Amino acid sequence: LKEFPRVAWLSEENVEHIPFSHTRYPEKEMIKRSQEFYELLNKRRSVRFISNEQIPMEVIDNVIKSAGTAPSGAHTEPWTFVIVKDLDVKHKIREIIEEEEEINYLKRMGRQWVTDLKKLRTNWIKEYLDTAPVLILIFKQVHGFAANGKRKVHYYNEISVSIACGILLAALQVCYPLHLAPKREVVLEGQTVALFTNFS
Amino acid sequence: LKEFPRVAWLSEENVEHIPFSHTRYPEKEMIKRSQEFYELLNKRRSVRFISNEQIPMEVIDNVIKSAGTAPSGAHTEPWTFVIVKDLDVKHKIREIIEEEEEINYLKRMGRQWVTDLKKLRTNWIKEYLDTAPVLILIFKQVHGFAANGKRKVHYYNEISVSIACGILLAALQVCYPLHLAPKREVVLEGQTVALFTNFS
Repeated sequence: LKEFPRVAWLSEENVEHIPFSHTRYPEKEMIKRSQEFYELLNKRRSVRFISNEQIPMEVIDNVIKSAGTAPSGAHTEPWTFVIVKDLDVKHKIREIIEEEEEINYLKRMGRQWVTDLKKLRTNWIKEYLDTAPVLILIFKQVHGFAANGKRKVHYYNEISVSIACGILLAALQVCYPLHLAPKREVVLEGQTVALFTNFS
Repeated sequence: LKEFPRVAWLSEENVEHIPFSHTRYPEKEMIKRSQEFYELLNKRRSVRFISNEQIPMEVIDNVIKSAGTAPSGAHTEPWTFVIVKDLDVKHKIREIIEEEEEINYLKRMGRQWVTDLKKLRTNWIKEYLDTAPVLILIFKQVHGFAANGKRKVHYYNEISVSIACGILLAALQVCYPLHLAPKREVVLEGQTVALFTNFS
């Protein structure tokens, strides 16, 4: 889990130019597409009970590739997606998160926050982290590395990663309308695991 | 622009229960849908030259409603979307942003940041804010109000709003594949205008 390749910043010369292309739909079609997309997304829920059925890895790959099309500050693309399928690793992740979440609920979050969450009936037990066939860990890269090995600032990295998460959720809902719940942070080698476990 | 209705927190009793429903696609269909969605999203660009052609308001409404399906910390839904069509208001917004952006480029951002942006050929001139037929201003609500008028904390408000923005971008790309570029902040009555003007 801890060894991420340090991808050097691509210099502009190495990137092939891809011309902008787009489809302009007739107005009626535009309205229909926007309506259908809304209706589909409006069915999404942040569920805490998740099926253990397998999901094709092509789907996970496409969903992450979709997320990677998100805009980012100065096009730094400050995200790392890690796919976890191994039962033991999933369970270790669950243990780390439950331990941190228990401290959150009992100490860090305060009485008001815990009260606000009461009606959502959430707690620090995350059984679904064992059940789900695949976990997607989402890391924000608070900095990157330039070709010379020096640290490179990633502007607006948290906002950028969150936008990518929004696209990831939309992509999942389009092809696999069932999924996880959002967000807790564990700092790991200057990056951050943004495991979605507190959102609703 | 400055008068937002202060929506009281909905108590759970007032909200009708909507059962969770979902479609499970056969694997082949799942892969196909995820692939097509990726290909569509991969065509999105953060363009700085925008058509002045009108867009049906139903489309804007559906796109914003889609964004509003995003998950949020403790389900606080800490976002406000403001649609601006009036030419004078759009122009005033452009003036405010250009003034702030010029200070950003010349003073606040520092030499490294401005250098990083050079290859993207962006600057503080945002002509497209006049040209676009519709601007969607996105505000994060750093706090809300409880029924008793007291301030209510909005946990993870920036992350929540950014996730909603990701969904908004996806929705736009699905029905109207052309759009704006991301992010600058102007504090306004305890909320924040997150006008996307610095993302790529």
